[in-house]
Amino acid sequence: MKRRTHTCGQLRKSDVGQTVHLQGWVHRRRDLGGLLFVDLRDRYGKTQLVVHPEESPDLAKHAHELHAEWVIEIDGIVMARPDGMINKDMPTGEIEVKITELTVLNRCLPLPFQLDEAAKATEELRLKFRYLDLRRPEMQETLLLRHKIANVVREHFTGEGFAEIETPFMIKSTPEGARDYIVPSRVFPGQFYALPQSPQIYKQILMIAGMDRYFQIVRCFRDEDLRSDRQPEFTQVDVEISFADQDMVFATAERLFVKILRAGWGVDITTPFPRLKYKDVMETYGSDKPDLRFGLPFSNLTDHFRQTEFRIISSAIESGGAVIGLCVEGQAGLSRKEISDLEELAKSSGLMGILPLKLTAEGFAGSLVGKVADDDLRKAAAAVKAKPGDLILMAFGKKSEILKGLGVFRRKLADRFHLFDPNSHENPSLFWVVDFPLFERDEETGEVSPSHHPFTGWNREDDHLLDTEPWNVRSTAYDLVMNGSELISGSIRIHDPEQQAKVFQMLNIAPEIAELRFGFLLEALRYGAPPMGGLAIGFDRTIMALTGGSIRDVIAFPKTNLAQSLMDGCPSQVDPQLLKDLYITVNPPK
Amino acid sequence: MKRRTHTCGQLRKSDVGQTVHLQGWVHRRRDLGGLLFVDLRDRYGKTQLVVHPEESPDLAKHAHELHAEWVIEIDGIVMARPDGMINKDMPTGEIEVKITELTVLNRCLPLPFQLDEAAKATEELRLKFRYLDLRRPEMQETLLLRHKIANVVREHFTGEGFAEIETPFMIKSTPEGARDYIVPSRVFPGQFYALPQSPQIYKQILMIAGMDRYFQIVRCFRDEDLRSDRQPEFTQVDVEISFADQDMVFATAERLFVKILRAGWGVDITTPFPRLKYKDVMETYGSDKPDLRFGLPFSNLTDHFRQTEFRIISSAIESGGAVIGLCVEGQAGLSRKEISDLEELAKSSGLMGILPLKLTAEGFAGSLVGKVADDDLRKAAAAVKAKPGDLILMAFGKKSEILKGLGVFRRKLADRFHLFDPNSHENPSLFWVVDFPLFERDEETGEVSPSHHPFTGWNREDDHLLDTEPWNVRSTAYDLVMNGSELISGSIRIHDPEQQAKVFQMLNIAPEIAELRFGFLLEALRYGAPPMGGLAIGFDRTIMALTGGSIRDVIAFPKTNLAQSLMDGCPSQVDPQLLKDLYITVNPPK
Repeated sequence: MKRRTHTCGQLRKSDVGQTVHLQGWVHRRRDLGGLLFVDLRDRYGKTQLVVHPEESPDLAKHAHELHAEWVIEIDGIVMARPDGMINKDMPTGEIEVKITELTVLNRCLPLPFQLDEAAKATEELRLKFRYLDLRRPEMQETLLLRHKIANVVREHFTGEGFAEIETPFMIKSTPEGARDYIVPSRVFPGQFYALPQSPQIYKQILMIAGMDRYFQIVRCFRDEDLRSDRQPEFTQVDVEISFADQDMVFATAERLFVKILRAGWGVDITTPFPRLKYKDVMETYGSDKPDLRFGLPFSNLTDHFRQTEFRIISSAIESGGAVIGLCVEGQAGLSRKEISDLEELAKSSGLMGILPLKLTAEGFAGSLVGKVADDDLRKAAAAVKAKPGDLILMAFGKKSEILKGLGVFRRKLADRFHLFDPNSHENPSLFWVVDFPLFERDEETGEVSPSHHPFTGWNREDDHLLDTEPWNVRSTAYDLVMNGSELISGSIRIHDPEQQAKVFQMLNIAPEIAELRFGFLLEALRYGAPPMGGLAIGFDRTIMALTGGSIRDVIAFPKTNLAQSLMDGCPSQVDPQLLKDLYITVNPPK
Repeated sequence: MKRRTHTCGQLRKSDVGQTVHLQGWVHRRRDLGGLLFVDLRDRYGKTQLVVHPEESPDLAKHAHELHAEWVIEIDGIVMARPDGMINKDMPTGEIEVKITELTVLNRCLPLPFQLDEAAKATEELRLKFRYLDLRRPEMQETLLLRHKIANVVREHFTGEGFAEIETPFMIKSTPEGARDYIVPSRVFPGQFYALPQSPQIYKQILMIAGMDRYFQIVRCFRDEDLRSDRQPEFTQVDVEISFADQDMVFATAERLFVKILRAGWGVDITTPFPRLKYKDVMETYGSDKPDLRFGLPFSNLTDHFRQTEFRIISSAIESGGAVIGLCVEGQAGLSRKEISDLEELAKSSGLMGILPLKLTAEGFAGSLVGKVADDDLRKAAAAVKAKPGDLILMAFGKKSEILKGLGVFRRKLADRFHLFDPNSHENPSLFWVVDFPLFERDEETGEVSPSHHPFTGWNREDDHLLDTEPWNVRSTAYDLVMNGSELISGSIRIHDPEQQAKVFQMLNIAPEIAELRFGFLLEALRYGAPPMGGLAIGFDRTIMALTGGSIRDVIAFPKTNLAQSLMDGCPSQVDPQLLKDLYITVNPPK
């Protein structure tokens, strides 16, 4: 193999006159005014090659046979491009390479889609021919950014005294909420390993083992019915600290995100990040991961409408409902049609409807005027801080439901009214959400489940609520939200075996079941466990947040919503002997 | 949580007088001459704490209750140790901390084994209580070294323009030799994913995708019956280079190993490493991974004994056998008993026996004298380069078998005669083995299988042998051997789809089977694959080579030879609902 002297992104005007050897893919070939041009491409860029048919008829004939995506190598001489041909947008745009020798290293079948026109291809086709899709510079840049950010993460934690320690992939099945992927054992037929949903228990064990500060960039697995932003295997940055308090965990994560945003966007952000209480963000933004690049906070207007003569509102309030409003600045001038579109937007957000109220220089306008006393409207307008020219939008009904609907609606309003520039990286919104509830209660069944995971500690000030109002116990869990994405989730853990047993009991996990599933952790807690806390960073999500792409754009070989890999065609049937060795039979429904 | 001011390895004489807060594990507590001492331990070291019962009777009472491995935090004042109490072997040995306040953070049940006496505990017990075993400084140092070497690897490849790209863990089952671990699909009952035996095909696809230079530190899985140096999940450093030749691959690996040995041992080695031909190392050392920290090369003596009157030798040669000898310097003086022990050693190495021949100042001695003509013995002695005072050891029989036996015997002889210092890192032996055969032929069935893997290319000079003597075709595979361990295995790959199809054909893989198993790779090769080559570094083995430990010592949570994790008790039975969801039944033999 002859070696390239340069990559395809390397040659400059200062190289003119050099003899070079280049290797790469034919990006495009074109005949122009008696000359034959080939754009040669590799990971590093593109270089224009040129053949003069009059000087070198054989070479021209050979070059003329080239097709897109053939792999070639050439010898040539670097030439300055004629003045009119200089391409300022291309790093190599001032030169071209005159081919003196050309070798075809490999050919390419007719392309299922043109790389420059990948947007027109179906995602199925792009996933099946992933190696072609990944040849596109945008895709390569994303994978290279992912590598760069992984290095930032590793340097950060290594620099702060964390050890990256590999935890096993074949572990005991200890369902943490989602369904495990399992692996049958051949040595012990009828028994299984599970693929980890996270290394949660193992990192706690590492703290009990005295490793003090641990991190790992690690694959995790969940057999869920996939939403479009999930993958059956995903990557997280897993972190745990002994003798940790929340401030310590937050500070190391904040220092990391300063570095990530500098490396990813060249943006400097300030620390510490704001800390918002779960209850407050839910009431103010209808979401535990609101996008705060824009405002649109909610105000609870229930008290102002308690006495209204507008019966559909007052009766809703009487039966326990709420009225919640927000103010869209400067949009009092919307047409009837535009207001009607907003009502549609509200319905598509899960709201029953929305009550619009315009505050103009002349006073209130809209269908509520006359139905609701002006004084009540004035109080509502004051509550949402409306000025003349603003549009007030209100919803009423069951509080949890309208909060959730308004949370979705708020995000859509921001797009509708261009309240922020999604392409700007100048003012990202990063904040912590704290004081999550320890438990969630299923409204229908009354069943209690952990909001985070069963190893999460709680605020000891709430001890007295544990048995009476467990759903009001504040946990020591926290999230980091950036631009509306939850990028980090973590908690200070339970390190007292009795407290851990208490939580299992509250979750209605019988002691013998807890022993079966989590026995080794309970046992380890009894052998000198230090206080500890940590977090997990969604690594795919972090790259998505940086690039704006889909989850399938930030993973080299992603799976579809049905958890299939279209490129290699998995899952697939396996050698029947393999199943025999495992004593396994599968009887799918007909 | 109050924060520590220092770790337990940090305080020095210059800190005397400071008020400090420390956290850690009670390593040992002892009462000495009216004083109460506690050694406090964390990942960073040990610090001696002291309580004066006369000054602080309550504190002394509290401290007296402490047991080994309790987790405590203390406030105290750093004091210089009295002259006679200074411990020069401990970084903190010049100070002690006088406790002013003591808090127990967690207790510890009676220990199943004492940490200082782990060597006395069974490995089963150590594995079950892995979190205790990992508290031992030796174990922690190994994990920290592993992290350090991983960083060396990542910095090396990143610095040389390689991108770390994550490949999937749930892939298509494409058996590469060993048995796959498989994962049932819930969405497609009866279909399975496989856990990767290596990302081999995916890294080749990444080259076809134009990623140019790839590496990954990645877990791999093989469902084998485990030898003691294997694990069902193991870690490799996976590397691939486009437009690669062997020199390019070797050079990057050599630069890496220079850095690894500097980081691990502080030793500087010279490059390039020697390149030995497979055929030569097999004939000279009876192994494709000989330890060359010592000599003991073999000489083929067959021709010298072809005419001998000693019938058992000449008849063995007549029926196709060989005589192979080696020379042990300066050991002609061994006693009859010692020679007899060597004969036992030979048998335990798989040899039928060994013929000893002493070359003394007076001439030859030993049982061969008289049976074999002195002239033949002289030729043999000259061939093995024996001088007076040396011991010649010879074996005869089927060549492949005695080579193999002598290879094992040679290693044992080196230990027996202390031919090298296993604890010295000064002169490690590193070399490449090249020119492996492309195929192996099963001597009994005649079946042909790939020596490396079916994607390995061959030396095009041997094209003419492909159909006539395929077992004599030299592949483009290579290994790196260090101190008798194969640490790297790799090859220049096939990038031509026709050549790839040819190899599948030679392996008796029918086109339709090849299509089923490897179809997506064959297809990808048809869409513009660049020439490529790469390697995989056994990461666990590399750490073993650096530390001298067993494979279970270099992995945080290893499995046993039965692929069990004794700590968490996996594999185990899983929730029957999970199996129902997968439509799976297991019918183990009764």
